[in-house]
Amino acid sequence: MNPQNSLRVRLETFTDGVIAIAITLLAIELPIPHIQTSDIASGISALVGHIPNMAAFFLSFVTIAIFWVNHHQLTQKIQPGGRISRKIIWGNMLFLMFLTLIPFATNMMAENAFHTISVLGYGLVLFGCSVSFSIVRSFIHHTPMTALSSARSMVGPVLYALAIIVLPIIPVLGYLLLVIPPLFYFLPKSTW
Amino acid sequence: MNPQNSLRVRLETFTDGVIAIAITLLAIELPIPHIQTSDIASGISALVGHIPNMAAFFLSFVTIAIFWVNHHQLTQKIQPGGRISRKIIWGNMLFLMFLTLIPFATNMMAENAFHTISVLGYGLVLFGCSVSFSIVRSFIHHTPMTALSSARSMVGPVLYALAIIVLPIIPVLGYLLLVIPPLFYFLPKSTW
Amino acid sequence: MNPQNSLRVRLETFTDGVIAIAITLLAIELPIPHIQTSDIASGISALVGHIPNMAAFFLSFVTIAIFWVNHHQLTQKIQPGGRISRKIIWGNMLFLMFLTLIPFATNMMAENAFHTISVLGYGLVLFGCSVSFSIVRSFIHHTPMTALSSARSMVGPVLYALAIIVLPIIPVLGYLLLVIPPLFYFLPKSTW
Amino acid sequence: MNPQNSLRVRLETFTDGVIAIAITLLAIELPIPHIQTSDIASGISALVGHIPNMAAFFLSFVTIAIFWVNHHQLTQKIQPGGRISRKIIWGNMLFLMFLTLIPFATNMMAENAFHTISVLGYGLVLFGCSVSFSIVRSFIHHTPMTALSSARSMVGPVLYALAIIVLPIIPVLGYLLLVIPPLFYFLPKSTW
Repeated sequence: MNPQNSLRVRLETFTDGVIAIAITLLAIELPIPHIQTSDIASGISALVGHIPNMAAFFLSFVTIAIFWVNHHQLTQKIQPGGRISRKIIWGNMLFLMFLTLIPFATNMMAENAFHTISVLGYGLVLFGCSVSFSIVRSFIHHTPMTALSSARSMVGPVLYALAIIVLPIIPVLGYLLLVIPPLFYFLPKSTW
Repeated sequence: MNPQNSLRVRLETFTDGVIAIAITLLAIELPIPHIQTSDIASGISALVGHIPNMAAFFLSFVTIAIFWVNHHQLTQKIQPGGRISRKIIWGNMLFLMFLTLIPFATNMMAENAFHTISVLGYGLVLFGCSVSFSIVRSFIHHTPMTALSSARSMVGPVLYALAIIVLPIIPVLGYLLLVIPPLFYFLPKSTW
Repeated sequence: MNPQNSLRVRLETFTDGVIAIAITLLAIELPIPHIQTSDIASGISALVGHIPNMAAFFLSFVTIAIFWVNHHQLTQKIQPGGRISRKIIWGNMLFLMFLTLIPFATNMMAENAFHTISVLGYGLVLFGCSVSFSIVRSFIHHTPMTALSSARSMVGPVLYALAIIVLPIIPVLGYLLLVIPPLFYFLPKSTW
Repeated sequence: MNPQNSLRVRLETFTDGVIAIAITLLAIELPIPHIQTSDIASGISALVGHIPNMAAFFLSFVTIAIFWVNHHQLTQKIQPGGRISRKIIWGNMLFLMFLTLIPFATNMMAENAFHTISVLGYGLVLFGCSVSFSIVRSFIHHTPMTALSSARSMVGPVLYALAIIVLPIIPVLGYLLLVIPPLFYFLPKSTW
């Protein structure tokens, strides 16, 4: 077992650990609905008021899950004898830094009733994740980022950037743009 | 080492990570009893008031532990050369999504003094876990869900569904139904 | 690779995951000192007021760390072809359940200014950990618990039981008894 | 597979688990900005008020990430047949204890508006991490700590100690000293 293999395994394990924790903390950080009435109807309406939070939880969960699947497919491409450079390690750390901000940003959005500024912060975090993931990908493929810019691989960075620009002008359209990158992933024949 | 083996290992590791975090967060999220008296008797009564929370913690802990054991037995059935399809990965993600909601739902129940609506939310989460687990099982066995519907494998989905229906009508009976699926697991000669 | 080996690996990984999370949550759950003065002297006195919390954190950290080391040594004793029975899995789950309560009990003690009742709760959790660990040990050695009762292996259960009995009568002595089992571990020629 | 190899693997896995959790909890424990106005300008100013917190998050994240990389390189140096002594295990536990205090100390600093005392606490935690890491390194290399004291390997302990001394006198200079050790790491030809 050569040391580089071992570094790949430990990098994957560490990344999986961070992603597993971030995805599990999403739910635990949700604001808890407080039902102050014994009446079932008003109890249900209290839960209904939490639907936007649940939707944000769902979006963040799916987004993190897609990053996990993509990350797995990416590290598979490292050859058994392939070198894991310092650039790959620190590009990956940058990616993990943005990823660990997703539960924080989701929670901030929920606690501020989806105030435009808080959605903007959420959009910035997702933009940071997708750009830093592209950076890691270009390091692993030993190619400049532009050489990878097939339509598909640029969906994330471009749409999140667009969302950030649109959000202060037409908030609703900005929100929708944040939902589209995960939908692209589930289109048939995806080869990300 | 073929890539599919590696995907199975990484899927197991990721799932184990999420389950380990969720089961550990159960306790940390329990509301903390505040003992404001120096009197031992009243201190004990403050702890007694937390018995329902401890019972909910215990039920959630056992339920998650059973899912872990069942999940282990299920992935053992994937042949070394067996393919892990996209359906299995995303079915498993759906299962993990419901599973990460268990600590949240347990906490919500405790903070709302077991209000019927909050127990209903808890029941829905457990129902989601057991149905999505059945979906993953049917994907791994390459068989339709109905073909697996031996009495045992349907215990979870059916009893949790029943609990959800009964809860708004006879709350106490609804609670009890949530406790039965784990009991079934511990019956002798279980071959789930 | 036979399935039983794999189960041992997955049981170790799951246990390590839960212990790693519990030990890391210890610190994060500490009450945060609030320093409301710009005066350094009073700032320091605010930190001094948190020394008991830090001591409790330290005790819990060392106790969990010892359980991790002991657990590792125990699973090493499972032969490569050895069976991991359902009893071992569920004995281990019982142990993990008590272990995940350590950060909760530590926090409860800190938030209640070391009220005797809260220390009693903490002692009960440690007692539960040490007894359930002994149960797992007896299952793995296929021997009754009494057959293992060398002086050393009974230190934990006996001293924690004693602490629980003594605490309501002479609180200070009860506290001290909780500190002794970890000290025993560090005695020379320990062969736990 | 000899037992000592297995202990090395389990020690690495446990350490990686604790580091992954600590680094992920950094973000989740950040105080959440509350935006009470519908006005975008004041919303942005609310976020701006959180820049020091984000800077502290960033510093802690990079510091923990460097410890992870260094820890990986260190355990690589344990020969396949090399013994993992009790000293290494407990030196590593001491290191992990300080490391799990980083999210707590970061949060304490943010919640106290970077009060000098709270920055001092943060500096003490980083000092503890770097000294205990040096201890583990000397145990693994079977050499006294002084024999390792190349300029580079002493950067952390010395600068953190200096920061702690300077902080109560010239707070701003003390802050800056905490930022320098990570910068050293990224200097070219680092061979930590």
